Amino acid sequence: MSLLDNLNWRYATKKMNGTKVPQEKLDYILEAARMSPSSSGLQPYKIIVISDKALLEKIKGISWNQSQITDCSHLLVFVAWDKYTNKRVSDVFNYTMDERGLPHSTMDDYKANILSLYEPLGEEWQAHHASKQSYISFAMAIAAAAEQKVDATPVEGFVPEKLDKLLKLEGSGYKSTLLLPLGYREESEDWLVNMKKVRTPKEDFITEMTIEDAADFDEAPSGKTIGSLPNK
Amino acid sequence: MSLLDNLNWRYATKKMNGTKVPQEKLDYILEAARMSPSSSGLQPYKIIVISDKALLEKIKGISWNQSQITDCSHLLVFVAWDKYTNKRVSDVFNYTMDERGLPHSTMDDYKANILSLYEPLGEEWQAHHASKQSYISFAMAIAAAAEQKVDATPVEGFVPEKLDKLLKLEGSGYKSTLLLPLGYREESEDWLVNMKKVRTPKEDFITEMTIEDAADFDEAPSGKTIGSLPNK
Repeated sequence: MSLLDNLNWRYATKKMNGTKVPQEKLDYILEAARMSPSSSGLQPYKIIVISDKALLEKIKGISWNQSQITDCSHLLVFVAWDKYTNKRVSDVFNYTMDERGLPHSTMDDYKANILSLYEPLGEEWQAHHASKQSYISFAMAIAAAAEQKVDATPVEGFVPEKLDKLLKLEGSGYKSTLLLPLGYREESEDWLVNMKKVRTPKEDFITEMTIEDAADFDEAPSGKTIGSLPNK
Repeated sequence: MSLLDNLNWRYATKKMNGTKVPQEKLDYILEAARMSPSSSGLQPYKIIVISDKALLEKIKGISWNQSQITDCSHLLVFVAWDKYTNKRVSDVFNYTMDERGLPHSTMDDYKANILSLYEPLGEEWQAHHASKQSYISFAMAIAAAAEQKVDATPVEGFVPEKLDKLLKLEGSGYKSTLLLPLGYREESEDWLVNMKKVRTPKEDFITEMTIEDAADFDEAPSGKTIGSLPNK
């Protein structure tokens, strides 16, 4: 089945039946999330995997009591950097250069560039920016789960501050951004499964534009050229 | 090829050769982006497709002069809501209920709930939240392109305020969030194509947690249960 077939097969499962997802399928989903692209290749996020029922019960209590949190096989908790720092960025770039057999200094200009761009935008903006990268990884996990015929429910409905406290993220440099319970649908108790999947109609979702539709925008380009974006 | 194979095949193409992407492949990529899930199913984003070279030249000038902007076949510009309003949310939910043959009032409680959650968080938070949803759709487009063996470069490196002005987005309720040039790699001029793809090592990317690792967190759950999440 194609990605598009898989996207049509999947849905935000409302009721799961507790069946275990085999380890090799879980590993595959996590690997797709890990191979996801991110801004400048920084991957300012990681994933906490939880299957301990006692811990899931506590998470459910701060996630609007959504039953999938405890009826799932594994809960993926996506967490992202709370800000960008020279050390964090350097660590990633240095590792990347080591893996490529290049000197760390290869990235000096690029690193200075992004830090000088991000710094004035403030920590709140930086946390949002890091969180956004985790959404790309989250999407790849959703697509990978569907490919493996594993059900998943994208969940933003939790209290991040409480989850950060529960998972001892405070002071770790990470904040929780998203939850993805993985498991198997219990169709007979799922009110959503047989509902029509509805999306923005194509004609509203896609607009084509040409120079005729654009503003008469003659501001001189900055002339700045970014050379060595390190992400792949 | 599997999604994971496709993720390993793709890379942030630095040099494209100007070859046209066939319409059916473009349509497939856009359809995957459209079928992407989003928070509460609101899809607070859409895609502008640009292939007009004169307009792409102007966009390149405000996108760090990245050559893919003009060497691509089509540029996808992802744009997202600048805030959540009762009307925007109602329009989506009413359309969804119409498509499902249910009364609009089905969504009244849920709608009041999310609007009361989002309102105090302010317009800046709301714009970030809508933008985050567009990252999921963006990721599906990246995965779909790779499946079609179409190259793509995820681009955050542009000046959004200038692009909004150029594309006359001001006053439209949308802000530009991401660019995705689609086309074909020019391997002989692409410095990145033969570099090793580097990601956070698995052991750092994935952490398992049990109740033993968690904080002694005994705050009473809110007891609030969200019933009818409308997204699928």
